[in-house]
Amino acid sequence: MMVKMLNYIQFGLGPIGEKIVSYAIDRENLCLVGAIDIDKSKVDQDVGQLIGTRPLGIRVSSDVDDVLKNAEADIVLLSTVSSLAALEEQILRCIRYGKNVVSSSEELAFPWIENRKIAETIDKEARKHRVTVIGTGVNPGFVMDALPIFLTSACQKVHSIRIERYQDASIRRRPFQEKIGAGLSLKEFMEKVSTQSIRHVGFTESIQMIAYSMGWELDRTEDIVEPVVADNDVASHFIKVKKGEVVGICQTGRGFINGNTVITLELQAYLGHTAPKDAVIIEGEPSMQFEVKGGVNGDIATCAMVVNAMPKVLQASPGLKTMPEIGLVSWFKGYR
Amino acid sequence: MMVKMLNYIQFGLGPIGEKIVSYAIDRENLCLVGAIDIDKSKVDQDVGQLIGTRPLGIRVSSDVDDVLKNAEADIVLLSTVSSLAALEEQILRCIRYGKNVVSSSEELAFPWIENRKIAETIDKEARKHRVTVIGTGVNPGFVMDALPIFLTSACQKVHSIRIERYQDASIRRRPFQEKIGAGLSLKEFMEKVSTQSIRHVGFTESIQMIAYSMGWELDRTEDIVEPVVADNDVASHFIKVKKGEVVGICQTGRGFINGNTVITLELQAYLGHTAPKDAVIIEGEPSMQFEVKGGVNGDIATCAMVVNAMPKVLQASPGLKTMPEIGLVSWFKGYR
Repeated sequence: MMVKMLNYIQFGLGPIGEKIVSYAIDRENLCLVGAIDIDKSKVDQDVGQLIGTRPLGIRVSSDVDDVLKNAEADIVLLSTVSSLAALEEQILRCIRYGKNVVSSSEELAFPWIENRKIAETIDKEARKHRVTVIGTGVNPGFVMDALPIFLTSACQKVHSIRIERYQDASIRRRPFQEKIGAGLSLKEFMEKVSTQSIRHVGFTESIQMIAYSMGWELDRTEDIVEPVVADNDVASHFIKVKKGEVVGICQTGRGFINGNTVITLELQAYLGHTAPKDAVIIEGEPSMQFEVKGGVNGDIATCAMVVNAMPKVLQASPGLKTMPEIGLVSWFKGYR
Repeated sequence: MMVKMLNYIQFGLGPIGEKIVSYAIDRENLCLVGAIDIDKSKVDQDVGQLIGTRPLGIRVSSDVDDVLKNAEADIVLLSTVSSLAALEEQILRCIRYGKNVVSSSEELAFPWIENRKIAETIDKEARKHRVTVIGTGVNPGFVMDALPIFLTSACQKVHSIRIERYQDASIRRRPFQEKIGAGLSLKEFMEKVSTQSIRHVGFTESIQMIAYSMGWELDRTEDIVEPVVADNDVASHFIKVKKGEVVGICQTGRGFINGNTVITLELQAYLGHTAPKDAVIIEGEPSMQFEVKGGVNGDIATCAMVVNAMPKVLQASPGLKTMPEIGLVSWFKGYR
């Protein structure tokens, strides 16, 4: 009896793409059939050896069209760039070769308002070629949007939703600690905020995803980044921070109806946070408080979400979708 | 501009059916177009007056075929009996009149193993008539199956799942307190357990739903009901319990692979439970612990879930579905 395989192409072999492949290897009936990256140091390497496991018999190629055209795949896992404007052309190319697409781009998780034109273009092309496209990940894509949305299914009324994601940055890798501004002076931090180089991407998209599911027409949204300043000297493995310098970030997103806040997203990520968690507080009937002790591990979950979404994406109808529209994503032992 | 309405028939106007209608009234663009019950004291009453609100202009009818045939509805909300064997004929009748069906029957939430023949019959008929049928509710349907399933989407590995639902029965209505055996002697309780008149229905279905999503082939399941015995005299508004008598129930369901427990469901419902909650403990990568403080209110959530599922059921493909297969159910302000 032939076993049904899910063949996929990994497009983008940076840290996220490499981790996605390492996760996919662990599942049954997922088969890497093509790999794309423009990094010359990676081209022609066996993907398995690149990620530090057994050879997979698939070499990295920089020839996008060749791989998309010739590798017999059901789906492309796309983890190249974050910006949707830069990503659009890659997505359209995958679509035109008849491939479903799962992307880790934050802006794609709910692009219908912030990037309406691009969303409509992708949607139209995907329907025409009868494939499904989705952006997903831990955040946006799950912990601060799709999961709170699903929690409301137990409610007869929802007045407002508050979502908190608190993280101790000292247990994370160096790039993450730098990304949240640890070790910067207040002045340096605010400069980086003004050029948008310090911010979590996707709060507005998460808020809009929630509002759409709730049927709320928001007047406006806001997305504000603030520093968390050290009370005392503090150090991680990588960064020393003096009292008065920045230890991390507190970012707050809000959605308003008639001036009232109906959706609040609060992300706190700093060195030495003593109360890490993910929490959802729903005011309604019933009201509910929900917590993940210690919080959902973002490094694992973003890549796990991309892999876990694959079967549901294949079953979904054609077009550009968002997480609330496809079936319930879950871990799975093997594709069937 | 014509507003799109979701027209529905309420089939069954017991306590659950009445609450479903009272909830649906609160949403925009949901329209009751027919109501069925065989209770002579309800027949011909205006449904609005029956549930204690304004007249709705729809009278209860006992003529099932007349309502199903002539009321122009997209969907039937079916809350008559729990037993799937007894419900099958009603479901098939709805299907043959071209109606989608959302039922609160526990056994329908995942009937593919315990009631395979009935499931296949319903599925085949639903596909033939191009309608969707689903069983849902708070439990099974959400808190001890679909929600834990969705939580695993953040995981790269899942070794086992444990789900706890702890309830203080003293804040619930009399029928609930009686249902869990509060006030019975140990002997009376064990007699009722042996005739299956004391048990939460649906543990096996929930376990099988979880296993199916995970891709786990279980060797077997078990579903064991045990009494919780009073350490001291205790009383609720309705029932006095002496020390040594039963205050409630502890029910444990398990799913096994190679003799190892991979799924555990534990329901504790007794008078004076001091630590009510819903909790999910996932052992895997990452491991995670979730909690709903105080637990999800079952009385509200079962009926809210039926109403909240309606739009996703209308969008789903034809056939008999389960909660993981339809889009993400959520609260919504109005149908659109």
